[in-house]
Amino acid sequence: MKLLRVGTAGAERPALLDAGGTLRDLSGLVADIDGALLADDAALGRIRAAADAGELPALDAAGTRIGPPLARIGKIVCIGLNYHDHARETGAEPPAEPVVFLKAPDTVVGPDDTVLVPRGSAKTDWEVELAVVIGRTARYLESREEALECVAGYAVAHDVSEREFQIERGGTWDKGKNCETFNPLGPWLVTADEVPDPQDLGLRLWVNGELKQDGTTAEQIFPVAEVVRYLSRFMTLYPGDVINTGTPAGVALGRPDPKPFLRAGDVVELEIDGLGRQRQEFKDA
Amino acid sequence: MKLLRVGTAGAERPALLDAGGTLRDLSGLVADIDGALLADDAALGRIRAAADAGELPALDAAGTRIGPPLARIGKIVCIGLNYHDHARETGAEPPAEPVVFLKAPDTVVGPDDTVLVPRGSAKTDWEVELAVVIGRTARYLESREEALECVAGYAVAHDVSEREFQIERGGTWDKGKNCETFNPLGPWLVTADEVPDPQDLGLRLWVNGELKQDGTTAEQIFPVAEVVRYLSRFMTLYPGDVINTGTPAGVALGRPDPKPFLRAGDVVELEIDGLGRQRQEFKDA
Repeated sequence: MKLLRVGTAGAERPALLDAGGTLRDLSGLVADIDGALLADDAALGRIRAAADAGELPALDAAGTRIGPPLARIGKIVCIGLNYHDHARETGAEPPAEPVVFLKAPDTVVGPDDTVLVPRGSAKTDWEVELAVVIGRTARYLESREEALECVAGYAVAHDVSEREFQIERGGTWDKGKNCETFNPLGPWLVTADEVPDPQDLGLRLWVNGELKQDGTTAEQIFPVAEVVRYLSRFMTLYPGDVINTGTPAGVALGRPDPKPFLRAGDVVELEIDGLGRQRQEFKDA
Repeated sequence: MKLLRVGTAGAERPALLDAGGTLRDLSGLVADIDGALLADDAALGRIRAAADAGELPALDAAGTRIGPPLARIGKIVCIGLNYHDHARETGAEPPAEPVVFLKAPDTVVGPDDTVLVPRGSAKTDWEVELAVVIGRTARYLESREEALECVAGYAVAHDVSEREFQIERGGTWDKGKNCETFNPLGPWLVTADEVPDPQDLGLRLWVNGELKQDGTTAEQIFPVAEVVRYLSRFMTLYPGDVINTGTPAGVALGRPDPKPFLRAGDVVELEIDGLGRQRQEFKDA
């Protein structure tokens, strides 16, 4: 299923994009799309049954904003340097263990919302990423099989990053990852049953129409199942948590000087096979 | 005012500790203590007026658990190496800018709840910290005066840390800061009007009755007002966000080998002048 949330920011209603491409209203069935829903197999079953039976009312979504496909995100855990090609372009050794940092849920916006270039920023960069949405509590998992059972679904994430704040201002990376609007998410949360192999997804990103990233999750150093298993040894993952699993090669940081960092007026588009497409206009904060 | 939340985990009710030391029930006035309440001057005024008029019913709290004093925390931003004496003991240079990392809100437990030593941990450490609770949105603040106006109150935080996960496992510090139960908070949220000078608070921590940390916020390299101002340039702080402002000298990491890291059975007690006292028993996860 492709689950999404449509409407003005903070007042989105739950919806489903059906196999025929029609938007269906879920607000008669569920209050919202959040961790509680993803942990509730019965509720998900009711949505699926109603969709299959053609009982969901169509939603007139002409001109309607698409919000992030998940409400009340608990935490966003990010994996750094998780693609062989991206590690090479940044001059970093492939890490021996996953590189972990956090992003605050309040950075999440809809897939087509405006992204703000922070005041004082000269190095705002793009990163298309496969987001993993947790549906069952993951705690001290032993195997990759157990890990995949904790995954509710997948989405496109844009892990916008300010490289000077991230790398040149002291401390950990978090300083350059948590600016407001820095995590467009969506358009859809695609349930895991529709993603048979998360390690075979193409990811692409364009800046002002020019293709900048063209990768595949096959290049991930630590695949989704290993990331979830590994993280569960250091922190408990709860339904409604999100993992941004890293970005392939092609970011501005990896280019020769002068690096083409983002400015107000730039338009970034990104997509992942089967998970939909985002488009953001960048403006000054 | 001293605001707190009492009851079983996940079902706490809002309360107030009055000047006479009696616990008063706030559940007739407000639904909970969270960012929305802290941003609502009228609601805070009603609590204050009812308390002053002696209208709040006493709460029989004998044997009742105290929960964290804040629900629905948006994010926890932590400042590392923020005390001159702690920077010295870890062999680090005092940072030129605040060192920032994040802690997930799901690590928060009550002040006297059990803390779990992670599986595989040999280096679980303690850190008493002054927590700052945000009450007004802080975004691109210019001055320290504006910053203090965004502070709703203060609390005791225990920034429990696993040093091997934090330092020796690659990536950022976040890996050793987000284990479950790693952020006891409370007992109280003391409103800012009752803390005339946040840079003049003694902080103490004991392990099994032995004093380990005995510091003062006067040693902070970046004072509370500067931390809030600085952070607001990199991220937006919202009502209900928390800042752990760093720990003074005396952690296990700063001791000669063999360092006295925490194990199951250890009891940690900590307190800050005017903000109350915590007591945690450590157990194996």
